[in-house]
Amino acid sequence: MKLLQDQIIKNGKVLSENVLKVDTFLNHQIDPVLMQAIGNEFAARYKDSGITKILTIESSGIAPSMFAGLTLGVPVVFARKRKSLTLSDNLFTSKVHSFTKGETNDISVSKDFINNEDTVLIIDDFLANGQAALGLLDIVNQAEAETAGVGIVIEKGFQPGGKLIRDKGIRVDSLANIKSLSNGKVEFFEEETIR
Amino acid sequence: MKLLQDQIIKNGKVLSENVLKVDTFLNHQIDPVLMQAIGNEFAARYKDSGITKILTIESSGIAPSMFAGLTLGVPVVFARKRKSLTLSDNLFTSKVHSFTKGETNDISVSKDFINNEDTVLIIDDFLANGQAALGLLDIVNQAEAETAGVGIVIEKGFQPGGKLIRDKGIRVDSLANIKSLSNGKVEFFEEETIR
Repeated sequence: MKLLQDQIIKNGKVLSENVLKVDTFLNHQIDPVLMQAIGNEFAARYKDSGITKILTIESSGIAPSMFAGLTLGVPVVFARKRKSLTLSDNLFTSKVHSFTKGETNDISVSKDFINNEDTVLIIDDFLANGQAALGLLDIVNQAEAETAGVGIVIEKGFQPGGKLIRDKGIRVDSLANIKSLSNGKVEFFEEETIR
Repeated sequence: MKLLQDQIIKNGKVLSENVLKVDTFLNHQIDPVLMQAIGNEFAARYKDSGITKILTIESSGIAPSMFAGLTLGVPVVFARKRKSLTLSDNLFTSKVHSFTKGETNDISVSKDFINNEDTVLIIDDFLANGQAALGLLDIVNQAEAETAGVGIVIEKGFQPGGKLIRDKGIRVDSLANIKSLSNGKVEFFEEETIR
């Protein structure tokens, strides 16, 4: 997605060979116009997939998911990273290790909001090691729902998450797929190789 | 806001005299159509206020903020509830006690995203004891920015937060203001008394 790649080139900061900081438009400050374009792109790609629900994870998956949900006409459910006292035990849970934060969190989704009649589009901001996406897939499986695919804003294609998920036969749509962050420079895979 | 009040009556669950659960449409599963209406209502109320930035807090403030930001044509910044390793020390921080969760969190916003030229609309999903809103106001003050007002989706008007903030001379717009949750029933203040 050219608009997104342009934003990454213009405003992303390469902090190391593994870390791209995009907090000016995606995961701290958020650009609503870009999020709408991203949400609409996911919606266009999955418009014929019979999606009944979008599943994401707090916090940075929420913004693009809102616009995809609006366009597809379906609710958005976000997995929480830990239990809140106003949630009961009526939960699907999974464990997600964050290599960035160096910690493992429980993620949870109320059993009220996903069930075996759902066709789910999973959306997240980043795909790197794939742990968050695998946790969300686990929750969809526990609910005996169907996964239509995984929509990712930025994949770090040089890390193993994308292959892990595609090797399970699951469709992954990454709107920007980064080949390398070497030498302080962002290099993308060609669009054709990622679709 | 009638659409919101209707949703609260229809789908909110009164768990006690203090606790209203709205996780079917606001803070776990999210209704994008309602969020768009809410965001547009905030935008309409603040369209002449010279807003340059929306400040909210993860996670449930993000969805309504996105639509307000889109309509007002300004970025959304969400305060994080704890530091992430990819954020530097370049932060405004404040402490927020959550009575619901029984814990105190640091909230933080990068100094890159709010400064003394900003006019800020603060948005959050709930106003009860006012601790989150006070933390966000503290951050706006640290940045020497101006606060145009505080937009709240659901105020629990029988709790002290709203008065605390209004007594500081700060405008508060609550789209639904709850007078009482007694006897398992939601009762609202009249619209006129809250504007």
